[in-house]
Amino acid sequence: MTDAPVGSLSIITLGVADLDRSIAFYSAFGWPQAASSVPGVITWFDLGTVWLGLYPTTDLAADSGLRPGAARPPGEFSGVTLAINLGSRDAVGAALDTARAAGAHVTLDVADTDYGVYHACFTDPDGHVWELAYNPGFPIVDGRTVIP
Amino acid sequence: MTDAPVGSLSIITLGVADLDRSIAFYSAFGWPQAASSVPGVITWFDLGTVWLGLYPTTDLAADSGLRPGAARPPGEFSGVTLAINLGSRDAVGAALDTARAAGAHVTLDVADTDYGVYHACFTDPDGHVWELAYNPGFPIVDGRTVIP
Repeated sequence: MTDAPVGSLSIITLGVADLDRSIAFYSAFGWPQAASSVPGVITWFDLGTVWLGLYPTTDLAADSGLRPGAARPPGEFSGVTLAINLGSRDAVGAALDTARAAGAHVTLDVADTDYGVYHACFTDPDGHVWELAYNPGFPIVDGRTVIP
Repeated sequence: MTDAPVGSLSIITLGVADLDRSIAFYSAFGWPQAASSVPGVITWFDLGTVWLGLYPTTDLAADSGLRPGAARPPGEFSGVTLAINLGSRDAVGAALDTARAAGAHVTLDVADTDYGVYHACFTDPDGHVWELAYNPGFPIVDGRTVIP
């Protein structure tokens, strides 16, 4: 862990319009849910290193001292991507199959980039963007992606 | 690490309008930068468990198969929060001081919630939302926040 004075990242919380719909979507990814999750209120998935929270957008905005924005039009970027780096091209394809079966909207099918990464992207029911990537330059050591 | 079939979260990438401005902002938090960062192109900060990437919003949108949206009006929620859980109320205050000195816009000053969390929130230069939290119910063990 970093000894940075401000600490490190603990929880990424996604604002969602329909909590049950999002729980169903993310359950397909195989991450365990925290027992502390409160049905109908908030849910956390254990991503191993950090936690993924799901919480109604209006509540999350209010808790943050902000007002909710208008719904994002389809195809418009939300401003943040969450990347899962994997150990092979096949793993990217398999993970994309899992996402697609869960109802993900694939915004970029598997493709090679000109910077040496094989990846695909999808959005969840609220337009949050995920990337699945195989980057030979970023080894995965003990389950953690290493950026040299 | 989780053995979930789709792997775990590796990199959170924030779309930014001015890369140098955002690098200066996040450098104040004490997280080391990856040597692989490319000046003027992309930067990664090592958050210990995962990485924080900074990349121009237009490029990040294009790489994800999406189009950039209109700039978010001030005070409007971006849809995602990134939480740093800390071990004490004092640590929350100290981290908020660090963020404020870096130019963060404080959207919620330190406050107790009715669900037992002491927290504060701020936005970065692009409106990405961070929460600093002391939650006595979520112990920090070996630097990792545990949600029971």
